[in-house]
Amino acid sequence: MRTFIIKANTTVTSPDFSLKDLPGTGGRIDLLCRFLNSAFLLSHGIRKDVRVFMTLYGKPNPPKTVHFEGPRLKVRLNPDERSTALILKRALKAGKDLRDPLKELEVFPGVYVSNMTFEDVIRRVMKDSSLYYLVEDGKPITEVRFPQNPAFILGDHIGLSKDDERFLEGIVEKVRVGRKSYLASHVVAFVNIWLDGIGHRNEKG
Amino acid sequence: MRTFIIKANTTVTSPDFSLKDLPGTGGRIDLLCRFLNSAFLLSHGIRKDVRVFMTLYGKPNPPKTVHFEGPRLKVRLNPDERSTALILKRALKAGKDLRDPLKELEVFPGVYVSNMTFEDVIRRVMKDSSLYYLVEDGKPITEVRFPQNPAFILGDHIGLSKDDERFLEGIVEKVRVGRKSYLASHVVAFVNIWLDGIGHRNEKG
Repeated sequence: MRTFIIKANTTVTSPDFSLKDLPGTGGRIDLLCRFLNSAFLLSHGIRKDVRVFMTLYGKPNPPKTVHFEGPRLKVRLNPDERSTALILKRALKAGKDLRDPLKELEVFPGVYVSNMTFEDVIRRVMKDSSLYYLVEDGKPITEVRFPQNPAFILGDHIGLSKDDERFLEGIVEKVRVGRKSYLASHVVAFVNIWLDGIGHRNEKG
Repeated sequence: MRTFIIKANTTVTSPDFSLKDLPGTGGRIDLLCRFLNSAFLLSHGIRKDVRVFMTLYGKPNPPKTVHFEGPRLKVRLNPDERSTALILKRALKAGKDLRDPLKELEVFPGVYVSNMTFEDVIRRVMKDSSLYYLVEDGKPITEVRFPQNPAFILGDHIGLSKDDERFLEGIVEKVRVGRKSYLASHVVAFVNIWLDGIGHRNEKG
């Protein structure tokens, strides 16, 4: 199982955003739509061995965590942003009156909403996965041998805070792709393809 | 300069598509929005050394070619699909009454529309670039040494036809990423990051 975790600093935590202006009214919820696209979609089908946690810290009720669980996923994930935004809208609507700090509400088969914090998500995922933090000063991904259940943590357009990074210290390995600063969805696309294996080197790995 | 070329078999060649339903009314024009996103966007900025040719073969006036030229690009390219679709809508509107088979009309600085065919685009690009066809039975990208001006040809969700492939025979090298069949935008994101250089192997390359 591959896990992708993103902290979305500005993404709204209410369903009252407009499908006509996802970046503005949704606090960059368009970014999360492309993140899900990169994590799950293949040319003709879906990756069943992937799960995604997105922790939303925008107004008005942060935090909210939306979690997609590949092996249980039944809702149709289309490539376009708008249809994915509709799924997120439904999840945020269902999660509006949630009080419990950790309990997940299943909105569609395989899609959950909760009040989990970024730290709650990390604590949960590290129980069954090895954590990697994708960041510019990490080790080149080509030099890392990944275990069976890698979990990748990414920042959004703002990135993780100093506090977040302090929390991750000692429990993550820092990894990078490329030599520049990339959009989260591009990094996820790269990581997925890289882990599928490419050259002869990976065939033997 | 890196060039990305895509043949969009079903994308509409008129501006009369709805921003509320890009996949349906636009004949998968959402795919081209993400293609441009992957080709040009970095986390905070744009790649100036990239150009993109998209040849559209959908109804009602095929073919239309929309061409984005990085070094001259002045129009703001945002990450979300809707705002990019608006640029394409304007380009298709401007190109509606074009008669000349090869002449490009500049719609915005660095954005052009024309009646060029897929073959016209290939003939033009091969004058200054080395052609690579990204396809599942290609050579692993990790084993290819790329020259200064590589141009990558991709299919959409339908792919290139037998005739297209016959036309490309002998003038392209086949290359692949990963072991599966990927969305075009994911492949472009991968190729861009890979060509930026990743590990020590590439540093010396």
